[in-house]
Amino acid sequence: MQGLSMTQKTADAEMVPFEQLGLIGCGLMGGSFALALKKAGLVKRVVGYSKSPSTTERARQMGVIDVEAPSALLAAAGADLVLLAVPVAATEATLKSIKHLVTPQMMIMDVGSTKVDVVQAARSALRDQLGSFVPAHPITGKEVAGVEHADVNLYRGAQVILTPTERTLTAHLSRAQQLWEALGCHVRAMSPEAHDGTLATVSHLPHLLAFAMMQSVLNQPAADEILSLAGPGFRDFTRIAAGEPKLWRDVLLANREQVLSQSRNFRAALDQLESLIAAEDGQGLQDRLTLASDARAHWHLGKRSAKI
Amino acid sequence: MQGLSMTQKTADAEMVPFEQLGLIGCGLMGGSFALALKKAGLVKRVVGYSKSPSTTERARQMGVIDVEAPSALLAAAGADLVLLAVPVAATEATLKSIKHLVTPQMMIMDVGSTKVDVVQAARSALRDQLGSFVPAHPITGKEVAGVEHADVNLYRGAQVILTPTERTLTAHLSRAQQLWEALGCHVRAMSPEAHDGTLATVSHLPHLLAFAMMQSVLNQPAADEILSLAGPGFRDFTRIAAGEPKLWRDVLLANREQVLSQSRNFRAALDQLESLIAAEDGQGLQDRLTLASDARAHWHLGKRSAKI
Repeated sequence: MQGLSMTQKTADAEMVPFEQLGLIGCGLMGGSFALALKKAGLVKRVVGYSKSPSTTERARQMGVIDVEAPSALLAAAGADLVLLAVPVAATEATLKSIKHLVTPQMMIMDVGSTKVDVVQAARSALRDQLGSFVPAHPITGKEVAGVEHADVNLYRGAQVILTPTERTLTAHLSRAQQLWEALGCHVRAMSPEAHDGTLATVSHLPHLLAFAMMQSVLNQPAADEILSLAGPGFRDFTRIAAGEPKLWRDVLLANREQVLSQSRNFRAALDQLESLIAAEDGQGLQDRLTLASDARAHWHLGKRSAKI
Repeated sequence: MQGLSMTQKTADAEMVPFEQLGLIGCGLMGGSFALALKKAGLVKRVVGYSKSPSTTERARQMGVIDVEAPSALLAAAGADLVLLAVPVAATEATLKSIKHLVTPQMMIMDVGSTKVDVVQAARSALRDQLGSFVPAHPITGKEVAGVEHADVNLYRGAQVILTPTERTLTAHLSRAQQLWEALGCHVRAMSPEAHDGTLATVSHLPHLLAFAMMQSVLNQPAADEILSLAGPGFRDFTRIAAGEPKLWRDVLLANREQVLSQSRNFRAALDQLESLIAAEDGQGLQDRLTLASDARAHWHLGKRSAKI
């Protein structure tokens, strides 16, 4: 993994607030961002747009946005910061729809879970305005979607990965880092490819496996009774299987090569454990389980790599 | 699944406390049981034994047990209730070691995660005293082991499955039900085979998959950096991979046929999702993910089957 080094932590410097956030997508991720930005005093006005007018209206009623916009273009109009919080598959069309309003002074970020496809979409949509775009992925979320679950603390303590293109303006990259740090995040930069490989391992594959686990139970005639006996281990293991189907469809398709490759790695590890079980090799099995158990017991959320 | 019907809920009737609990295995499960029984006023004295003398001593210092016994046999001596809270592979040897003290008045339970092997071990060890044994599996736990994690509320709200043999005395079966209900548990009875099939699906396989997931990350050169970017989804998905290796070695080996069979079901479900991903069949993938997501979103811990 080629981690690009970020500039020094900048949160100590006072950050000048943004005049206007154009929020495109007022769901869980977008809504939580707007709430956090407001609470931190980092934005004066939020103009929001969602595909579903009822979502936009609810966002305004909840105080997540100040003004409803009838289109993505009108949400971006006059904004010095635009946040795209839409399914990754909608990135290109959304950027195209606001393109002729984009200026070098406007900073645009996304919060998508995949980055190779998002960067490709931005290249294709923004062309000579690509410098305004800072691709971002805050590693956080909930298994429930929608603005009604927006949470001012969703981003606090989360890691945020920025995957700038070679054209991204350094002023925007620094400002993006400063902004996320001001929201309590830990910021790193890496290439879109390294991001997608890593996230396939720690996020996309686990989601796929959790979905497959649920599917595998549902395929059984006694599914209902089986589920009635599931305990706390099952609850936590499958929590992410309640994720939003459309969002995960897009992620799994967008990053399919890395996901399928990581699934092959996973199956090889599973094969090995199963061979030990089938051979009733107690010591061999215990040794493998101990490696896994120790690694998991010593890991915790936000633990830094020794190499970073 | 052939669920055996239990008698009516009996918790309303006042339960006569046990005189003496012989606790064999003073770890997380045994220690929590003793604490809960004491708090409910259902036992006058707890005599405990653990393979490791330092565990037994710590259990006494913590007030989990009242008296340290130097052997399993001496922990059982004089007890009207014996709880075996040892790894399932140790069941037969432990029951053999106390066998000549077992009377029809003594009730013996275990808390093992597998039941076919435990019942087989009890048949072989107890022979004509098999009627005293009520095989029990409280579906709860923690990813940390040891008496220092013993928790008076570990069993509260948990489901407990009893898998009586044809020789189990009905008086003991009723008393066992009453006891677990007095600790706040929901009690069901089923055959050892039905228990092991169901638990393979909702517990043993998820553990195997979580161990394999950790192993699959560790197999990669950049494991350390990859893990540093894992978020809350990964945290919950792999929580059970921190489980105790010896305990899970025993469970996976004892129930290996059911576990391997459930793994084949799981792989078939994973194959299907991956085929849709490889074919970039967005609608087909979304349909499948929606089934899984809806099922998980509507499930909750302790949810009863419509059929029960």
